[in-house]
Amino acid sequence: MNHFLKLAQKRQSVRKYKSTPVEPEKITSCIEAARLAPSACNAQPWKFIVVDDPNIKNSLADKTADRILPLNHFTKQAPVHIVIVRESANISSQFGSAVKQKQFPFMDVAIAAEHICLQAADEGLGTCMMGWFNEGAVKKLLQIPKNKRIPLIITLGYPDTELKEEKQRKPFDQIISYNSYK
Amino acid sequence: MNHFLKLAQKRQSVRKYKSTPVEPEKITSCIEAARLAPSACNAQPWKFIVVDDPNIKNSLADKTADRILPLNHFTKQAPVHIVIVRESANISSQFGSAVKQKQFPFMDVAIAAEHICLQAADEGLGTCMMGWFNEGAVKKLLQIPKNKRIPLIITLGYPDTELKEEKQRKPFDQIISYNSYK
Repeated sequence: MNHFLKLAQKRQSVRKYKSTPVEPEKITSCIEAARLAPSACNAQPWKFIVVDDPNIKNSLADKTADRILPLNHFTKQAPVHIVIVRESANISSQFGSAVKQKQFPFMDVAIAAEHICLQAADEGLGTCMMGWFNEGAVKKLLQIPKNKRIPLIITLGYPDTELKEEKQRKPFDQIISYNSYK
Repeated sequence: MNHFLKLAQKRQSVRKYKSTPVEPEKITSCIEAARLAPSACNAQPWKFIVVDDPNIKNSLADKTADRILPLNHFTKQAPVHIVIVRESANISSQFGSAVKQKQFPFMDVAIAAEHICLQAADEGLGTCMMGWFNEGAVKKLLQIPKNKRIPLIITLGYPDTELKEEKQRKPFDQIISYNSYK
């Protein structure tokens, strides 16, 4: 009981990493956690590219750090990146997305990504999910077909930072109501 | 170690519930887990409506069960529904969504919803995330402003079903590659 609440508190966006390599079996566990994630109509519209070759990883890191804005300039420190490719969903999920105007595969990928981050936190690793990067350049680097989308890239490594005691979140009573919106 | 992998295995979509009421403190823990979820630019674009009044919950259940398609006809059994409203995101997240053509608030809500489902599983409760329902009718019932969106509704209650031993998922080697898409 309450293991998960502790883990949810422990998981934080890590933007400072040690150069220590990540054990391959820990990376495997993170992908296994993602594999078990739920998805709309069980479509599992995802592929995970583990980038751990130092040269390729550094090229990738250059494509996530924005050239103009002060965004994601920490990425080169992380020894591993996980690139999540959105694959085609099954017909039921596609139909649902179109009729209900909700991009279910993007939501599915977000959940799978969070499974990676939670499993990593459980193993003492740090992660940061990024949605802002040069998607075209990343596709070219990793030979990802042009028609695919890359919703998220995750940095992975041992954190070189302390755990925050409290998260910056809205107070509980501001985000909940009972039996009506008001 | 490996607590999270076990929890990810334990969480499953539950479509058969006991009528046993859910303890209020367990519902609170689920919302607390969602409160701790990460979101793009820490926008926290969400509000959680806990529907536990039996009459309102049953009316809501009618609006999630599709009248024509064989979808979500189990909802009335669940003693609690949690409706997640997408609230406005901060400027950074809105800018990112527009420039990168990714609906970050929908992805944020999906992650928060999964935190609810994982915390519920950790407490012995069952959940099912639903993205297919009559959104207009739900807004009317719960007095949710017309300009809001409802990405997901979650059913919550004690499961009246066995835990599946294995999830129907693609094999590991079909969803992973190293340093390139191929």
